Amino acid sequence: MTKRIDVALLPAEALSIASDCYVVIDVLRATTTIATLFARGVADLIAVNDLATAREIARRDGRLLFGEVHGLPPEGFDYGNSPVEASTVEPGGRGAVLFTTNGTAALCSLAGRAVVVAGSLANAGAVASFVRQHERVTLVCAGIEGGNRFGLDDFAAAGVLVERVRDGSPDVQLGDAAAMALTATTLSEWHGSTLPAAETTVARLIAGSAHGRVTESIGLGHDIEYSVIADTSSAVPVVAACGEGWALLVDAAKDEPA
Amino acid sequence: MTKRIDVALLPAEALSIASDCYVVIDVLRATTTIATLFARGVADLIAVNDLATAREIARRDGRLLFGEVHGLPPEGFDYGNSPVEASTVEPGGRGAVLFTTNGTAALCSLAGRAVVVAGSLANAGAVASFVRQHERVTLVCAGIEGGNRFGLDDFAAAGVLVERVRDGSPDVQLGDAAAMALTATTLSEWHGSTLPAAETTVARLIAGSAHGRVTESIGLGHDIEYSVIADTSSAVPVVAACGEGWALLVDAAKDEPA
Repeated sequence: MTKRIDVALLPAEALSIASDCYVVIDVLRATTTIATLFARGVADLIAVNDLATAREIARRDGRLLFGEVHGLPPEGFDYGNSPVEASTVEPGGRGAVLFTTNGTAALCSLAGRAVVVAGSLANAGAVASFVRQHERVTLVCAGIEGGNRFGLDDFAAAGVLVERVRDGSPDVQLGDAAAMALTATTLSEWHGSTLPAAETTVARLIAGSAHGRVTESIGLGHDIEYSVIADTSSAVPVVAACGEGWALLVDAAKDEPA
Repeated sequence: MTKRIDVALLPAEALSIASDCYVVIDVLRATTTIATLFARGVADLIAVNDLATAREIARRDGRLLFGEVHGLPPEGFDYGNSPVEASTVEPGGRGAVLFTTNGTAALCSLAGRAVVVAGSLANAGAVASFVRQHERVTLVCAGIEGGNRFGLDDFAAAGVLVERVRDGSPDVQLGDAAAMALTATTLSEWHGSTLPAAETTVARLIAGSAHGRVTESIGLGHDIEYSVIADTSSAVPVVAACGEGWALLVDAAKDEPA
């Protein structure tokens, strides 16, 4: 049972937090795409932090190649990093490769340290159930600008996960940032402007974040709308193997006894 | 006039934010102590990030030696890192040296990059007036555990500074974390528990932070009470010179025409 929840505001902060389980959150859009791809039936997924490696692994293994640079699919990629697009993919049991600016970099940087999970609103319920078996859980905001800057979008999603994980353990201890994230999800006001009812606060924070506004501006507003919907996937993607610059994710929910 | 305010949630994040002016905030207690010492009339202050260097400079220059390790004054130091103690010091025009775990490390890491200021609630008004001359201002939370972890205490103080700096420029653009800090200072609820009236929210957030609770537990509650009082100092300590592991601060407010 979870006794302590922390939120790392940047991937680098997570390296200073001793935990049994790290949940990497890149709600716009990498971890939402990952949760969606597992829901569509990919066999597994390799997250990589280098464009050339992504192409090479996809070619070598015959994997479907997903990813983005500046938000858009790089040349030669089968798909972008779009959860909406991912929700229509028919992988037919094939594996996938994903390269993105923030989310996959964060997954690779943490892989090998305890249990590492890819979390989003899309699989919030499934991830919360899974991580409750661990005493010390850290939710990691993947951030923006290669993970060097804080992103409010990931923080708002982290707040939902704090609430979900805590649900089963009312006495759970919260770190400063975890308490702040939980508070943010229930705000009725945001620096002066009144927000609508509580259940949509998180969606407003995500869409209104710096990252949300950029995502909207390059024509990907439909991905934001998709990414703020909770529980469209029951997958729990966890790192099963890793090396320099790559992490193999499999669906831990799939292997559990029914 | 300020056009953009960012908040760096950790000192490392500040290195990725292009700015004309960085305000380092370690409200519990380094930057509060610094503001207080300048109000008491120290000639200048050298912030150092190494204990031996602090002792050496103090001996060499005949400076008053202030600092802490695990919150308490190290052996041979004249004073701790206590703003309450600092408020009674009679420096008689002497200079000071300060070594602390988080605040002086953050000052040293940023020194040499544009204008660097030591800010706190104690000198919030003076610092806000000073930094408004800069277009891009970044408020840097010094954090805890050597600056590797986020501290809610510094973040709450940053919110007050966002509000003060913005006061003169209603159209100022706020980064994600700056908007969040501003919101935090006006919260009426904090993860479920109702807070008292708005003006005391910041004090409650500081005292209730992980760092606040540790500070209280080692018998330094009086320093927390002092650190949450705004505008006890009109000093604007700015970095005037720096080298590897040290930064010399002088009071920019002193040199301004009356």
